[in-house]
Amino acid sequence: MSGTIDRLLAEKRIELPNAAVPVANYTPVVVADGTAYVSGQVCSWNGEFKFVGRVGRDFSAEEGREAARMAGLNIVAQLKNALGDLDRVKRVLRLNVFVNSAETFTEQPKVANGASDLMVEIFGDAGRHTRSAVGVAQLPLGVAVEVDAIVQVD
Amino acid sequence: MSGTIDRLLAEKRIELPNAAVPVANYTPVVVADGTAYVSGQVCSWNGEFKFVGRVGRDFSAEEGREAARMAGLNIVAQLKNALGDLDRVKRVLRLNVFVNSAETFTEQPKVANGASDLMVEIFGDAGRHTRSAVGVAQLPLGVAVEVDAIVQVD
Amino acid sequence: MSGTIDRLLAEKRIELPNAAVPVANYTPVVVADGTAYVSGQVCSWNGEFKFVGRVGRDFSAEEGREAARMAGLNIVAQLKNALGDLDRVKRVLRLNVFVNSAETFTEQPKVANGASDLMVEIFGDAGRHTRSAVGVAQLPLGVAVEVDAIVQVD
Repeated sequence: MSGTIDRLLAEKRIELPNAAVPVANYTPVVVADGTAYVSGQVCSWNGEFKFVGRVGRDFSAEEGREAARMAGLNIVAQLKNALGDLDRVKRVLRLNVFVNSAETFTEQPKVANGASDLMVEIFGDAGRHTRSAVGVAQLPLGVAVEVDAIVQVD
Repeated sequence: MSGTIDRLLAEKRIELPNAAVPVANYTPVVVADGTAYVSGQVCSWNGEFKFVGRVGRDFSAEEGREAARMAGLNIVAQLKNALGDLDRVKRVLRLNVFVNSAETFTEQPKVANGASDLMVEIFGDAGRHTRSAVGVAQLPLGVAVEVDAIVQVD
Repeated sequence: MSGTIDRLLAEKRIELPNAAVPVANYTPVVVADGTAYVSGQVCSWNGEFKFVGRVGRDFSAEEGREAARMAGLNIVAQLKNALGDLDRVKRVLRLNVFVNSAETFTEQPKVANGASDLMVEIFGDAGRHTRSAVGVAQLPLGVAVEVDAIVQVD
């Protein structure tokens, strides 16, 4: 059986962006010994940056949450592209959530929930992961959120 | 044989905090294929945040070291809770130490030693890990230190 | 057969620095179950810090790229020291690139390319890795770039 997660995405009307191809000497996903590493994905949609600025200054925590969800959707898009079938995801092991944060903004966990909730919404218990959420000084091209992942795969 | 590490903790009078339960869609520890991933733990004790502020502004490097040790104690508490027996720890593979840093504070390694020393104190050679220590712009709820871990387990 | 990568380094005149020995309770490399974890390496050469300051304020993106390449050379030096033979590298799985960034500097990917290009230059397709590049508030001793790695090994 395959395509179970794809059918669930269709039922829940969760659309995935195109998987971005890096224009440098790195790759979006490497699979080795049953573990998939996913490069840092940002809050872009089909290559267009959607949240550029700092959370706590330019964006609210709630907007940051949406940005993290979008970065999470890019993680899933990259996994689908690399694995062929999202049913191969056995367990999301780790998410690192980097939040471009205003100096006094301390709600990184609320922002990170955008990515965390998405993983559980899509993969169920297999999406229940460990995570770190930190506030960083800047992110590539000034985006609000970057998320990377380590995933156990079949 | 089991409980060796527990006995050592008792002998050295090292007390562990309660393992905090996340109130969101992530989990403190995931074990897969002999590797345990531990979510970012902060300098709290039984849920109470003990060091809130920036190292190099609100806290000295020495206080930061204590905060990192406390985050490390939470890592160990989470491992004990997830593994049942801390003797299952074969090797601490990686610590990431995120230090909420004043702009000019550059002693992140000294701060990180609080967590590093603890791992070797508890696990001996099995506690000798790789690590990264970085200064970040903010951390969840403004805490001074966050530490996450990857651990090889039986 | 062994020494293939060493011969390539000689041909390309790529010199490696000495592998730094940490003066604390952590170790540069841990190998477990075919995976090598490498501690955060900085832009130093034989122990001397070469780029101290912020990218986007004290250093250009191009200088940051050189700093990231130097951190990458330290990663390779640590791998050689730990593995004995660099031919044991099967795949570079992940680089985390932390860039000490001025508030408005957003070219972290350009900086990170210094390390990424080096991995592919040395290891070819086996050097093609996943990565995250983030801008941080400070780094140990004020260095411009810190890079850590996870590597699949024989």
